[in-house]
Amino acid sequence: MATGGGAYKYYDEMKRILGVEVLREDEMECLIMGLDFFITEIPREVFTYSETDPMQFEEPRADIYPYLLVNIGSGVSMVKVSGSKKFERIGGTSLGGGTLWGLLSLLTGARTFDEMLAMADKGDNTAVDMLVGDIYGTDYSKIGLTSTTIASSFGKVFKMKRQGETDAEDGNGMHNGEAHEADGSSSSERAFAPEDISRSLLYAVSNNIGQIAYLQCEKHHLERIYFGGSFIRGHQQTMNTLSFAIKFWSKGEKKAYFLRHEGYLGSVGAFLKRQPKNWGRRNSFEEG
Amino acid sequence: MATGGGAYKYYDEMKRILGVEVLREDEMECLIMGLDFFITEIPREVFTYSETDPMQFEEPRADIYPYLLVNIGSGVSMVKVSGSKKFERIGGTSLGGGTLWGLLSLLTGARTFDEMLAMADKGDNTAVDMLVGDIYGTDYSKIGLTSTTIASSFGKVFKMKRQGETDAEDGNGMHNGEAHEADGSSSSERAFAPEDISRSLLYAVSNNIGQIAYLQCEKHHLERIYFGGSFIRGHQQTMNTLSFAIKFWSKGEKKAYFLRHEGYLGSVGAFLKRQPKNWGRRNSFEEG
Repeated sequence: MATGGGAYKYYDEMKRILGVEVLREDEMECLIMGLDFFITEIPREVFTYSETDPMQFEEPRADIYPYLLVNIGSGVSMVKVSGSKKFERIGGTSLGGGTLWGLLSLLTGARTFDEMLAMADKGDNTAVDMLVGDIYGTDYSKIGLTSTTIASSFGKVFKMKRQGETDAEDGNGMHNGEAHEADGSSSSERAFAPEDISRSLLYAVSNNIGQIAYLQCEKHHLERIYFGGSFIRGHQQTMNTLSFAIKFWSKGEKKAYFLRHEGYLGSVGAFLKRQPKNWGRRNSFEEG
Repeated sequence: MATGGGAYKYYDEMKRILGVEVLREDEMECLIMGLDFFITEIPREVFTYSETDPMQFEEPRADIYPYLLVNIGSGVSMVKVSGSKKFERIGGTSLGGGTLWGLLSLLTGARTFDEMLAMADKGDNTAVDMLVGDIYGTDYSKIGLTSTTIASSFGKVFKMKRQGETDAEDGNGMHNGEAHEADGSSSSERAFAPEDISRSLLYAVSNNIGQIAYLQCEKHHLERIYFGGSFIRGHQQTMNTLSFAIKFWSKGEKKAYFLRHEGYLGSVGAFLKRQPKNWGRRNSFEEG
């Protein structure tokens, strides 16, 4: 049994080298089937996450439909699951892991996702993000914004960079008391630390996915949101920011759910697909 | 009459230098008041936009409530307007003009928004974006994705950059037939043109705003979407991409509306606020 892009890409080689018959199954179908199995059957599998309270497990349960699956890889797919084997892709966004990885590899020189997350961990997004307080000097509470809300991701960069360049052109750079780099690059170009950039972009991508997921739930009347995909896999910061985002946008009404065996959904689903009909824990309990 | 951040920032100077009394009005209230006035009263004001059919004017009309105002400056505010002087900020996103300007000033060296748009105009986003066809080789029509849909903004960058670096380390860079730069930088670092990066990010930001605006309309049952703010002002490409995004996400059911005098909403609103009650075109027609 095989699924995913590799099931097609390596089909001939698997058959030839391993000398086996290869049965290819649809990726999304397998993913959902595996997910359903894990959610409904496996104890200590589904959990919520926060920095202060990491990995709080939920009991497995059968009354889960309809729910939203948010699968975050390079891009993001949002899938409404209304019953066992009944699902529909209702949306997604092109701003996903690939966007974060791509932009950060250009901006910071980081070469792995782990390097990027380690940087983000040390960064301060308020050095590059424009907060509501930066614009109004205070809360704009009349329209429900607190001063620490991010008004514009990277909103400080353009203005500060332009100011730095203008200063350099005017010769002000010589008199402003800042140390100059030995390699001759102006201080303005060094003003934005890779750590701060990383944290800002991690927040931007996570918050955005959180908001869209929340709005899709509202539109389609979905109660629970499960997250999966390589953006999540084992990365505490992405779980933390996504959990925060869902809580923020839903005003505390919704939670983000994660799975321990999230990396195996597709393969478990493909495996399950070929089992006899009455196989599985669920059916082993059914007596009438 | 004054409104906006400047009404507070320059309050003392205006009073002192101009020797006048300065009346400060709430920014959002003035903006909505001006917008309402333009939409309901002024002919040849509201228009839809597309590359093939630029500036199609709509008739002014009174039955517009409730509608959505999407104000795109550094950040994005989404405001539900349910009646004259009745409005509520229902959401927004920190991914706005400031994000585009900030990231592009870091990535491309462009120094003005016009430079960025001129670059975007010449660029090809498929050089940096990962399309559905890049992943599956074809449409993934089972879940409603065509091969030209953007699956991941900047999704090609991380992979290609890593490949380039691995090649350079392995010495493959010397044998792959590509010309090397005289300054010694490897070709992999030059692989992403500022034009392509600009177009990709313009698409990403516009599509994202379009999707969130559409979902907010669904949640709040709003029919029409008006766009304003400095991201829009006179920039044909941003009107074009936003119009496309609204059409795309709503499956052709919704249109993006723009205003000719969009840059004057706040000041016209502040002006109107101090008029006698029965001033204005609307009231001048009311006879009983």
